[in-house]
Parts: sequence; C-alpha cells; structure tokens
Amino acid sequence: MSLKIDPWSAPKTLDYERLLKVFGIRPFKELIPLFTEKGIPLSLHMRRGIIFGHRDLDRIINAYSRGEKVAVLTGFMPSGRFHFGHKMTADQLIYYQRLGFKVFVALADAEAFAVRRLPRSEIVRIGIEEYVANLIALGLDAEKTVFYFQTNRGTPYYRLIQLFSGKVTMSEMEAIYGDLTPGKVMAAFTQASDILHVELPEYGGYKHVVVPVGADQDPHLRLARDLADRMKGVVDLLPPASTYHTLIPGLDGAKMSSSRPDYTIFLTDPPELARRKLMAALTGGRPTAEEQRRLGGMPDKCVVFQLYRYHLVPDDETLRAIREECETGRILCGPCKRRAADMLVEFLRDHQEKLKSAVEVARRVVEPPSF
Amino acid sequence: MSLKIDPWSAPKTLDYERLLKVFGIRPFKELIPLFTEKGIPLSLHMRRGIIFGHRDLDRIINAYSRGEKVAVLTGFMPSGRFHFGHKMTADQLIYYQRLGFKVFVALADAEAFAVRRLPRSEIVRIGIEEYVANLIALGLDAEKTVFYFQTNRGTPYYRLIQLFSGKVTMSEMEAIYGDLTPGKVMAAFTQASDILHVELPEYGGYKHVVVPVGADQDPHLRLARDLADRMKGVVDLLPPASTYHTLIPGLDGAKMSSSRPDYTIFLTDPPELARRKLMAALTGGRPTAEEQRRLGGMPDKCVVFQLYRYHLVPDDETLRAIREECETGRILCGPCKRRAADMLVEFLRDHQEKLKSAVEVARRVVEPPSF
Repeated sequence: MSLKIDPWSAPKTLDYERLLKVFGIRPFKELIPLFTEKGIPLSLHMRRGIIFGHRDLDRIINAYSRGEKVAVLTGFMPSGRFHFGHKMTADQLIYYQRLGFKVFVALADAEAFAVRRLPRSEIVRIGIEEYVANLIALGLDAEKTVFYFQTNRGTPYYRLIQLFSGKVTMSEMEAIYGDLTPGKVMAAFTQASDILHVELPEYGGYKHVVVPVGADQDPHLRLARDLADRMKGVVDLLPPASTYHTLIPGLDGAKMSSSRPDYTIFLTDPPELARRKLMAALTGGRPTAEEQRRLGGMPDKCVVFQLYRYHLVPDDETLRAIREECETGRILCGPCKRRAADMLVEFLRDHQEKLKSAVEVARRVVEPPSF
Repeated sequence: MSLKIDPWSAPKTLDYERLLKVFGIRPFKELIPLFTEKGIPLSLHMRRGIIFGHRDLDRIINAYSRGEKVAVLTGFMPSGRFHFGHKMTADQLIYYQRLGFKVFVALADAEAFAVRRLPRSEIVRIGIEEYVANLIALGLDAEKTVFYFQTNRGTPYYRLIQLFSGKVTMSEMEAIYGDLTPGKVMAAFTQASDILHVELPEYGGYKHVVVPVGADQDPHLRLARDLADRMKGVVDLLPPASTYHTLIPGLDGAKMSSSRPDYTIFLTDPPELARRKLMAALTGGRPTAEEQRRLGGMPDKCVVFQLYRYHLVPDDETLRAIREECETGRILCGPCKRRAADMLVEFLRDHQEKLKSAVEVARRVVEPPSF
C-alpha cells in the first residue's frame, strides 16, 4: 500500500515522520513527564528511544496510577524459533508485568495454520516449547500470565470475530493487507479479537490495554481501534493503546527473522554458534584501523552496538561508555565484537539453563487445542 | 456463476438434469428400494417427488439400519418470519427425529448480523420466538433437539472455522458466492462448521449427517464436502450427506420469501389474512369455466395444488382424488381455493394455539448469546 511503513528504518528517517504525521501516532518522549510525575520507571527500551511512539498510552498510565485494572497483550505466530527480535517484546511484557499489569499472550496457531501451512501438531509444539518456554525463561511469571492458543479461547472471543466481519469492507481489508486470502481475512479478525476480547467481562474486563508493536504492525492496531468504535451499541469496547518500537536489525543490517537463520540469533542457538554468527556481523567500523582510530566508529550503524543497546547492556552508564569508546576510536571492531560475543555467550548459557525447567512449566500452564 | 441452479424450477426442467449430470447429485428415487428393504417409511416429501435428489443418503440409511448414530442438521437465518417454505424443512427434521435421528438446528445469527445488518437483540428474539418456537409447535421435540446460535457454540466449532479458512482460495469462494464481503467469507466457513462440527466428539461424534436443502444450496454442501476432504490429517471428518428438494412457490408462482409478504403465508398470519392471500393465488385454471370443465385444470401449474401437495393434505389418496377432480374439470378454481383456505385456516388456528406454549419452551431450551 502507498503508506506502507518500513519497519526496518531507524526512527530518524522519513517513515518515522510519516507515522507521526499521517497516522497520528504521538512521540513517546512527550510522555516522559507523565511517567516521572506518577513515579513510574521507564523501561530500558523507553529510556533508549527504541520505543519511539504511542497511541493513548497516557490513558493507560493514568488508569494504572488510579489503581484501575490494566493489561498488556501481544501475540506470537508459532512458526519458527524464538530470537532476539522476539526477546524485545518479551522484555516489554516483563516490564509491564512487574508494574502490575495483567499479561496476555496469544499464540497465533490459527494464522500459522492458515497462512504458513504448518502441521497442527508442530504449531502447538512450537507454541509451547519455543515461545511460551522462552518467555518464561526470560522472566515472565507463568502463573500470572494468560497464554492461549487462538483456536482454544472460548465462545465470546469467537463471537467478536464473527461480529467484526460485518463491520469492515473488502476494500478496507485490502488497504491493510494487500492481496487477500480467506486465511488472511480470518487472521485479521482473529487478531482484532486478540486485542479487544480482554475487555469482555468473560476475560477479566480489562478496559485499559496496551499492545506493544513494531511500527509495521500499526495497520492491525488501526483496524482494532476502528472495530472498537464500530461495535458501539453491540458491545462496549474502548480502543486499545499501543506503543511503537524500532526493530533490532539482523546481523547483516537487514531483517532479523526465523527465515534468515545466518543473520538471526536464536535464544536456543548453541552459544558457540551464536558467537560465530556475531563475529561475522556488520559493524559501523571504518575501512582501515588507522581511520577508525582517527575518526571513531559509527555505533548507530553497527549491528553489534544495537545488540548492546537492545539487549546485552542493561546499564545505561555502561552503554554510554561503550558508545564513547567506539566513537572516540579507543576500541576497534574486533575486540568490541569479542566482548559482545562473550556477553552473548554468557547470556545464552544462563538462559538455556533456565529454559530446561521453563519447558516443563510451559507444558503445564498452556492448554493445547484438542486438534 | 455459469452453472447457477435456479431453485424455483420444477424438477422436470433442464436445471434438474444439470444438477444430476454436472454436480453428481443422484436421483432420490434410486433409493426407494433401499428404504423398502430396510423397512423405513418414506416421508411425505420423498413419496411425492418433492425431494428429488441426494448425495450419500444411502450411506446414512445403511448406518441407521446398522444401529449407528445418525443426525440431521439444518440452519435458519433469524431475519424474518417463519413461513411455509421453512415449514417444509421443519417437516423433514420431524420425520428424521421420529426415525431416531439426532436433530441439530443452527440459528445463523452471525450471518444475520454480518450480512443482513439486523440489531443483535432483534436477531436473538427472532431466532427464539419465531424460528425455534414454530419448529416446536410443528412437532419437533424440544428436549431431543439441539438448537444453538452460531455465536454461542463453543471452542471446537470455532476452531473448525479458523482452520477451514486456510484450506480454500479466494477464487473458490467467489465461484460459490459471487462478490465477496468479509461477512460472506465468515458466513461460508461458519456454515461449513455448522454442517461438520457435529462429527467432533465434543458435539456427540455424529459421523453420519444428512443436510436437507433446496437445490440452490448445493454450493454450500460442495464446500463442506471439499473441506471435510481437505482436513484429512488434521481432524477426521466424513463428507455430509444431503437431500435436495424443490421449493414451494409463492402465491404468485414466484419466490416464497419473508421479503414478499403478500405472496408468502407465514405461520403466524392471522387466519383470515392467510385466507385472503390464498384466495388471490395463481392457479392452474383455464381462461373460462367452460374450458376448464371441458379440458380440466392444470394442478402442476397451480400454487394452490402445491400447497395441498407440500403441506395441507398428508394423505396420498386424498391428494390423488384432488388432482383427479381438477384434471377432469369436476371442480373449478373458486371452490377448490375455498376448500384449501378452510384447511389452511384450520391448520393455522391449531398451530397458533400450540405456538403459545411453544414460545415459552423455546425461551427455556435455547441459550441466548450474552451480547
């Protein structure tokens, strides 16, 4: 579509401007005074500008500080392996959970079946052992989180899907999704129900819901917001709030994705394999060591620095020091990569140790569909 | 579509040939020896050639005579008033129920909302007070029948809808439904699940299901049969059996429909209004009384005779005598209509008396959706 957002651009580019201007997303930084006033800590991704935009998050924060019920919701399509792109969403869920938000995680098994054409048993296995288990190992509290498969969510959730279908035209669907298949039509309404059903009393009546997404996912949020509006008189739904983040790039600077395993670090990669992948990553280095010592490296163009920034370095002061070392030319890419690789290997070893028991927990807390 | 079946043609016309030749529907009369052999009485509509075709009904009859579980299913869109066209389907359900078949009645509230855009509360009221109540008053045993709203049917039913959506292309849908809307896409899969979900263990595991429909409904049956086939390896579904009937014409010889109230007799019409409608009906009479006495009337072109044949005269010998009186010119259209009107008025008075308590029963046995 003409206004297609490129999710891989940095927030400084034209597309970011477009999101803010054309789609009415507000800059996240406008909310920082509100967080400060309410005494709510910012998340790592908020502090670092990775979460750059939002819709209605102020409403959610105000409701939260009044002690009202608030929730955060996301969905994963169980069709590949859990990687550092997914981890970023996980980190956001954990942040909100620790503030006291209710967490809902949809496993988009219907979509994986209809659109990706995977076998059902494989979808269910991946959903539990790959997605839910990794989320738990990362620190999501399994007992306080609602994990569900889309095909296993109960009648009122499906009623929304059915009723939504009368409220949208084919042209509106095509504007959002391009070429349509019956599976995509179904997936669109199912996703809208994922976002909105938690407002129903049957699912806890969470009227204040935030959905953290990449900028490319905004069309889904706009559909959900429109549907909330169009259901007036049928069922009372508030439009969801959302936040928008830039996506961590793959190791070659292009997309991080399960379908590009050489450029994607999975949380179940053997640590030494992950080290080798990282050592081959694109950096923001100069053509020669001499030049780099003189001019400094370019961390904002460096995939390794993005790994530090998104994931490996929780402490802001340490991250600032790494940036300075790079920009002043005090460290070259080789040793910097080795340091990142050491951090990565340590993270993966620790995570994979936690994952062993997390798989057992995941099998216990998620109800698999009967077929 | 090019092979569109005209449901209003008599079974002798070209379209009937087409159904049998192009779509592989079998003539019903081929099954009469099987019914005789198994000692199963034919229904009024079977005996009179109104049910003219079938698919796989022999499989259902054989399963029935082996003592296996068998079911009959139909759906009504709760968007108008219950008329004599609906009664014909009701009569078939009652016939199968008295043989011992399990009866399922879907109330297509999702479709009424998405396609007809009626308010939800009105849809639910019509479903219960108009459709279910009339079915019960006609003799369907409320305690032995499963009546359900499409938006209230539970998770495995919806899972089928979601999974089906990955198994059909947009072109296939368009070939069946013409111009698509999201609501029609949803309605198509929902109807397929209506037909197939009763095979799931969660709904009784009825693997032998017959769906009695008008010839115009065959595209839905073909979709359901294809889907049963394409779900192999996911869930085990047998294709549904079906029977095909000609439709009773409206009082002007065209379509009987809620949207044409002057030409449609509703089961809740005040009896004297129904009498007036019938007295204005198209008959198979000749231009003059003299001619009619000489040449006889044409009962096969007469809407009043069709009312006798489909509904008012259960006894075959009586019906034969009426035909003979007409064809030999012994009775003219005026007195014949008055006789039919008397029968109709008597039927309606009796039915409407039963309807009073049936509405109460309907409210008790059907669970309305919560929104």
